[in-house]
Amino acid sequence: MLFYEETIKSTSIYKGNITEYVVEDVKLPDGKQAKREIVRHDSAAAVLPFTKDGELILVKQYRKAIDQISIEIPAGLQDKTDKDGMETAKRELEEETGYKAKKWSFVTSFYSTPGFTDEFLEIYEATDLYLAEDPLSQDEDENLELITASYEQAWDLYHKGLLRDSKTVFALFYWKMKKLDIKLGE
Amino acid sequence: MLFYEETIKSTSIYKGNITEYVVEDVKLPDGKQAKREIVRHDSAAAVLPFTKDGELILVKQYRKAIDQISIEIPAGLQDKTDKDGMETAKRELEEETGYKAKKWSFVTSFYSTPGFTDEFLEIYEATDLYLAEDPLSQDEDENLELITASYEQAWDLYHKGLLRDSKTVFALFYWKMKKLDIKLGE
Repeated sequence: MLFYEETIKSTSIYKGNITEYVVEDVKLPDGKQAKREIVRHDSAAAVLPFTKDGELILVKQYRKAIDQISIEIPAGLQDKTDKDGMETAKRELEEETGYKAKKWSFVTSFYSTPGFTDEFLEIYEATDLYLAEDPLSQDEDENLELITASYEQAWDLYHKGLLRDSKTVFALFYWKMKKLDIKLGE
Repeated sequence: MLFYEETIKSTSIYKGNITEYVVEDVKLPDGKQAKREIVRHDSAAAVLPFTKDGELILVKQYRKAIDQISIEIPAGLQDKTDKDGMETAKRELEEETGYKAKKWSFVTSFYSTPGFTDEFLEIYEATDLYLAEDPLSQDEDENLELITASYEQAWDLYHKGLLRDSKTVFALFYWKMKKLDIKLGE
């Protein structure tokens, strides 16, 4: 194959709780060698949860990697036992927000940044939210605060630089199209 | 601060060419401790390059991290000497495609996946493309093939699962709005 890079040697440098850091020596198509730094990461799922009033539920948390408060749509890692990303999305919505939803639909999926990680994210839309009677509890080391944002409030957070992660920026643009009743993927 | 996680110990596990893998022991707001896995990565810039005929220039390359061919908008890492992301975007467009552009505008910016990396990406739009007379050469270990895609062809690549990275999926949705003459960020 024209572009293929053959792995000559793969070295696991560190295996953490959510990532594994691997360095691979590869042979390029022209025969030269190069090193590739790879972060292995489980697949994840995220949710755009819309209330009955058409507001979006967001979660506010401190992200050590960027040393900032980050406002994001709910998301989390797929468990080995999840049969698909929607099951992950449903659990994460309940764990992080206490809400369940009557309606679910697939929005899109993407690799977060395939230059160095295999993290793959599926995004779902959840509407007709209702509070779970006995919601799943948050992960122990997560500290989250919920925000219920109107469309204008969400864009205001964006313009203030408080809403800056890829899936959530995508969500805002999706919401814009949703309001204009533009269908996706056509 | 309610959410802040104080770093007690920071350990650099590996320093590669494009990433540094760091593990930090942090103190959570409730006093408990946790470990955070962090991938340090330089900021990057990407370009949506539109030809005079309104087609999008894409680059096709093998991505070792996902062990797949990936079709993406042109992008690259910011150099220390770049005064801003637009300078990076201009260089990467020329290096990866041989094109320069008469018009440049800022589209958006985001953290790729702030759960474990500080990679920050700025996205610019480039229009009125023309071929550079003596274009900058590609990085040595990059093997790229150019694709010029119409709107329909780009969505076809998306539906076939060949166009799956976050910035490029975002670009497609942006293109949809652009065609409908919808202004961003409002």
